[in-house]
Amino acid sequence: MTAYRAAVIGLGAMGMGMASSLVAAGIDTAGCDISEDARNAFAQAGGRAAGTPREAAKDADAVAIVVVNADQVASVLRGPDGVLASLAPGSVVLGCATMPPDAAQSLAAEVEAAGGLYLDAPISGGPVKAAAGKLSVMASGAQAAFDKARPLLDAAAETVFALGDSPGPGSTMKMVNQLLAGVHIASAMEAMALAIKSGLDADTVFKVITASAGNSWMFENRVPHVLENDYSPKSAVDIFIKDLGIVLAQGERLDFPLPISQTAFERFREAKDMGLGRADDASVIKVYQRDGGFTLPGDEDT
Amino acid sequence: MTAYRAAVIGLGAMGMGMASSLVAAGIDTAGCDISEDARNAFAQAGGRAAGTPREAAKDADAVAIVVVNADQVASVLRGPDGVLASLAPGSVVLGCATMPPDAAQSLAAEVEAAGGLYLDAPISGGPVKAAAGKLSVMASGAQAAFDKARPLLDAAAETVFALGDSPGPGSTMKMVNQLLAGVHIASAMEAMALAIKSGLDADTVFKVITASAGNSWMFENRVPHVLENDYSPKSAVDIFIKDLGIVLAQGERLDFPLPISQTAFERFREAKDMGLGRADDASVIKVYQRDGGFTLPGDEDT
Repeated sequence: MTAYRAAVIGLGAMGMGMASSLVAAGIDTAGCDISEDARNAFAQAGGRAAGTPREAAKDADAVAIVVVNADQVASVLRGPDGVLASLAPGSVVLGCATMPPDAAQSLAAEVEAAGGLYLDAPISGGPVKAAAGKLSVMASGAQAAFDKARPLLDAAAETVFALGDSPGPGSTMKMVNQLLAGVHIASAMEAMALAIKSGLDADTVFKVITASAGNSWMFENRVPHVLENDYSPKSAVDIFIKDLGIVLAQGERLDFPLPISQTAFERFREAKDMGLGRADDASVIKVYQRDGGFTLPGDEDT
Repeated sequence: MTAYRAAVIGLGAMGMGMASSLVAAGIDTAGCDISEDARNAFAQAGGRAAGTPREAAKDADAVAIVVVNADQVASVLRGPDGVLASLAPGSVVLGCATMPPDAAQSLAAEVEAAGGLYLDAPISGGPVKAAAGKLSVMASGAQAAFDKARPLLDAAAETVFALGDSPGPGSTMKMVNQLLAGVHIASAMEAMALAIKSGLDADTVFKVITASAGNSWMFENRVPHVLENDYSPKSAVDIFIKDLGIVLAQGERLDFPLPISQTAFERFREAKDMGLGRADDASVIKVYQRDGGFTLPGDEDT
């Protein structure tokens, strides 16, 4: 029996965190990214830097693909330098991007046709939890896929929700979570904007709401960015345009109106139209500021 | 020095809870309601039942008005049987209804013109916390009003947020909380509807979301009503039509668009149009069920 080997494709904030937590758990881990800087940083953190997905996936028991969307997963899998060019039969691919459930099913079929296993495994928790090996994974797939992924999941995740025995439910669950997360961010900004416009002190509002029935995980997490006038991207506006876009596409597919998600999506789109696509998602409050002409915390200092 | 005396006008779920917690704290408390049943129930709980607001307010140091809206507060205050007909100079009136900030200011002016003090003091926490003396109060007013209300607040509230030295900010803060609460209820129902329509198990979704970044206080509190198929009104659809109506009126007044609140409001309105105004606010999911034709938990049993 040889030692368990893992690969992580995509060394952005989440992928680098996950790959580092695998290394910290003693797992022999290859990391691959199109950015040479990211590959070098991972090598310095004790990982093996791989130049292509094919090289990273060679001899790996589990390959986690931690990229932005389904199209990027597909391009990581395919072609002469892709994961499927070297994936050993019986090894598992974890699709960690947020994507439509039917895209997860189609990618799974492609991996299975090549002799691999597939775990529909979107992740959440943010970069800090990723680096600490404390991600949440919303996972579905065959028992064999779960079994093969287990050492990787044990090292990378605090919580693994097992949501079904085939691909699809993992991505559906993540999509539902992102619906709520996106709506809660946008409504946190609508509420803070109304509060400030109506003359309340922003710090006081934060203190009261986080102790009241109006609280949400996102309110508590994102409103401090507004209070500290820090719109450097912890998570960008573009991410929720993508994720709420997946939600709305699912609504279209099911012919099922999702008016609150639609309205929140439009707020993110307006932020992007203002040039804030790559800024922190708390920047949605600047859409309200444009409409309402009030002073945000920190504005008076600049 | 005579013993502190309190009065509570409006013995609904919240007012009865508050009045009972005052009695439990040893405060001599008069309670008044238009319902004879409510008055009798309060007398049986050890309170003094009063036939009119005037009678309840006589000799009271503090009069808490726990009714539905500003119009009801005004009618409790005015006329030959009203609070102001007997209020002693220097006694304090607490306006506990959710109302527009300018309504709170105008009611305060009316009470002050009659020689009383006014505390803008909307409450939250629900009937269970009311009965336990653990309400949250979002309060603003003169220091003399806070001082005079102190024994009542100590007995009825777990947390008193002191939001300013004049009426208005208390009601503004409550309005902002209700914006979030209303949007979070409606978005919880949109998310659960999409999840169920997409084939996820409702109990599993609840378990995953309450452990994830999509969580909100309202999701955690209201979704169990759906899971248990219990739409008996803990808090009714009509309440959020009223409270989001106050939010939208404030937006109109400030010429400030609040598109997410508007969309959530319309979902509550559709529930009311379906005859669900007096049902629990989780009934908003039935608007989505009408649009989407899925089976809710418990539907299959009936």
